[in-house]
Amino acid sequence: MFPIQPAIDGIAGFKASGVHCGYKKDGALDFALIYSEHPCVAAGVFTTNLVKAAPVLVDIERLETNNTQIRAVIINTRCANACTGQQGIDNALLMTRWTAERLGIAEEEVLVMSTGVIGTQLDMDKIRRGVDLAVDALADGETAWMNAAAAIMTTDTRPKAASVLTDFRYKETAGYQYHIGGIAKGAGMIAPNMATMLGLIVTDSRLGDPAMAHSLLFEAAEQSFNSISVDGDTSTNDTLLLLANGASADPAVHYDQFNEFLGDVCLQLAVEIVRDGEGATKFIEIAVQGAQGGERQIANTIATSPLVKTAFYGGDPNWGRIVAAAGRAGVPVDPAQMRLWIKAWDADGDGLLLFENGVPTDYDEAHAKAIMAQADIRVRLDCGMGGELVTVYTCDISHDYVSINGHYRT
Amino acid sequence: MFPIQPAIDGIAGFKASGVHCGYKKDGALDFALIYSEHPCVAAGVFTTNLVKAAPVLVDIERLETNNTQIRAVIINTRCANACTGQQGIDNALLMTRWTAERLGIAEEEVLVMSTGVIGTQLDMDKIRRGVDLAVDALADGETAWMNAAAAIMTTDTRPKAASVLTDFRYKETAGYQYHIGGIAKGAGMIAPNMATMLGLIVTDSRLGDPAMAHSLLFEAAEQSFNSISVDGDTSTNDTLLLLANGASADPAVHYDQFNEFLGDVCLQLAVEIVRDGEGATKFIEIAVQGAQGGERQIANTIATSPLVKTAFYGGDPNWGRIVAAAGRAGVPVDPAQMRLWIKAWDADGDGLLLFENGVPTDYDEAHAKAIMAQADIRVRLDCGMGGELVTVYTCDISHDYVSINGHYRT
Repeated sequence: MFPIQPAIDGIAGFKASGVHCGYKKDGALDFALIYSEHPCVAAGVFTTNLVKAAPVLVDIERLETNNTQIRAVIINTRCANACTGQQGIDNALLMTRWTAERLGIAEEEVLVMSTGVIGTQLDMDKIRRGVDLAVDALADGETAWMNAAAAIMTTDTRPKAASVLTDFRYKETAGYQYHIGGIAKGAGMIAPNMATMLGLIVTDSRLGDPAMAHSLLFEAAEQSFNSISVDGDTSTNDTLLLLANGASADPAVHYDQFNEFLGDVCLQLAVEIVRDGEGATKFIEIAVQGAQGGERQIANTIATSPLVKTAFYGGDPNWGRIVAAAGRAGVPVDPAQMRLWIKAWDADGDGLLLFENGVPTDYDEAHAKAIMAQADIRVRLDCGMGGELVTVYTCDISHDYVSINGHYRT
Repeated sequence: MFPIQPAIDGIAGFKASGVHCGYKKDGALDFALIYSEHPCVAAGVFTTNLVKAAPVLVDIERLETNNTQIRAVIINTRCANACTGQQGIDNALLMTRWTAERLGIAEEEVLVMSTGVIGTQLDMDKIRRGVDLAVDALADGETAWMNAAAAIMTTDTRPKAASVLTDFRYKETAGYQYHIGGIAKGAGMIAPNMATMLGLIVTDSRLGDPAMAHSLLFEAAEQSFNSISVDGDTSTNDTLLLLANGASADPAVHYDQFNEFLGDVCLQLAVEIVRDGEGATKFIEIAVQGAQGGERQIANTIATSPLVKTAFYGGDPNWGRIVAAAGRAGVPVDPAQMRLWIKAWDADGDGLLLFENGVPTDYDEAHAKAIMAQADIRVRLDCGMGGELVTVYTCDISHDYVSINGHYRT
């Protein structure tokens, strides 16, 4: 209804900055700050990894006692502050304290995110410099937001931002307008220990109910950031935050519509992460239906199978690997009831049917190869037993993936 | 107690052959037969994949009605006979019928294994030729067995065989002697759709009880073939068979001792599969303890993590990836209670402690790098909560793995 933009040109009441604190080489941006002039209703979704980084632990605890008065998020790269014990917690808290002092707000109003190497302590001289520079650099407008998006990059090759402006003011009975914007960094590794996904969504709409905000964010994450896979690893630092400051001139919100737009922004960011996956040469949608509730597990098994992912890299229509991955997903399926299609991303119709009734169709191999040669490919597997459609997004495993993750420091 | 040999020099009452039926190029061996002059007690362990190949379905059904009178196993490569519907079943049955006719035994006394491409029907002209040639070539002795081991190879770079001769005859009260021998093919892909593990264990001991034979085989498989990982994919064709013909001059068996030797032979074959893993440059033992029953799940998660496997390939001591993999394994762990060591394969003692009390130790980075530079490495993770020790074996993911699986046909 309203188009998703691949950038943020400003969200009322928010400022952003991205600066160089000394972590990255050649003066590259490596430290970001997001600030709201007004208190925000806030929600967070965090890694399910039981090894949680210090900033994750700090944010979880902070949101438990304060999810209506958040004012800022401070973010560093190159050090995950994970596996760092009490000193790591103390350093994360100090980051928020310094930020609060410089902004003239309360420490409890600041959240923190880190991404980078596991098992090393933060360099607090760099962090101190980052806080000072980031506060001084705060601004609204597109440049500030893109600097922030660039500053949280690790092995990402490009900054990731998305936004939507809704405008329902033509409806006289319920006129309202708001922005939703987000930045994210991808499932990239950083030298040498991490694969962190960080996402931050801000809106100038008014989300009065923190529990509802959390529910909306959780649902949006399920359909976006939790539906993508680069290599199946879950980091210690994965964090997605939502801040709503109600600063729009017409900030009223209808939750069902907000839900849709929030989902669009999150999906755009998530898709960008997969497209920029380490070494990725192909973008693959995997849609699974008819598995009586096991659809997501099957889709994830296919999306994380090294055999499937290398097959896509090679451009071969190796559908047997897809069927075999479905068969080992741990949920009941019957190959005789399966149907499998592939098609080019923008092709109409169902695509090319490869497998049906337990045997391959007499499909045209040249046609299948032509589809697999595309950069963007859709796979659809119907397990034939009824159930919803679940869609996940993944990329291939290439030689560059191995180079990036095997030889990063060499 | 008795050394494991990397070959088979003959098992009383068994004959073997490996011939060229026309599937592989350049006349390479591609069709194998194992024959017993006496009826065998037999047991099988099969893929857990719900997409089961025709030969797997045939063997499962056959062993249900006949597990005391098996005489032969016929094996082809280059075609998995999977996703082939009723025609695939008919062809697998025909393979056993032709074999039985040529050997002068009953069809129900023959088992069958296939490995190769998913989704294509067997070339029954080649199979017919293979049966005739394989029966004619049957012989005892090392050459025949190594031909069989070579004939079942796919992307394996070398044949895999192991055997042990037990000799308890010095014990006057319980004198007995028997051979256990096995051949296997590895978690290699074959153009382009498969990653099949096939294993066949034969013994001239007397296993009177088929249920006990199955129990022994299942347990041995758990500690060997089910404790290795190359890429985490489970094929449609994985099969491990045990045949016992009681043809030894002193074939009595003590099950507890047999269990140990069977385990040794299976482990030797399984380790050979990992060492010959596609593109593998390193062999890694992952031992996990103290996770209150979750040890295997953690060990498997570590062993199948692309991040862990590429880190080993790069030779970097990226222990954070190991801890993070443990944290996402889906079982309760507390990083503060974990301890993680690495050491060279043949080093004494615990090795180098990298992580303890939730933080890295002050280990020597050069020492850690020197260990990671080894070809054979041991990792030990103690989760600190009590529980058994589970050991799994894996290899790294290299550029060659991607080449083999991505570009096999190109």
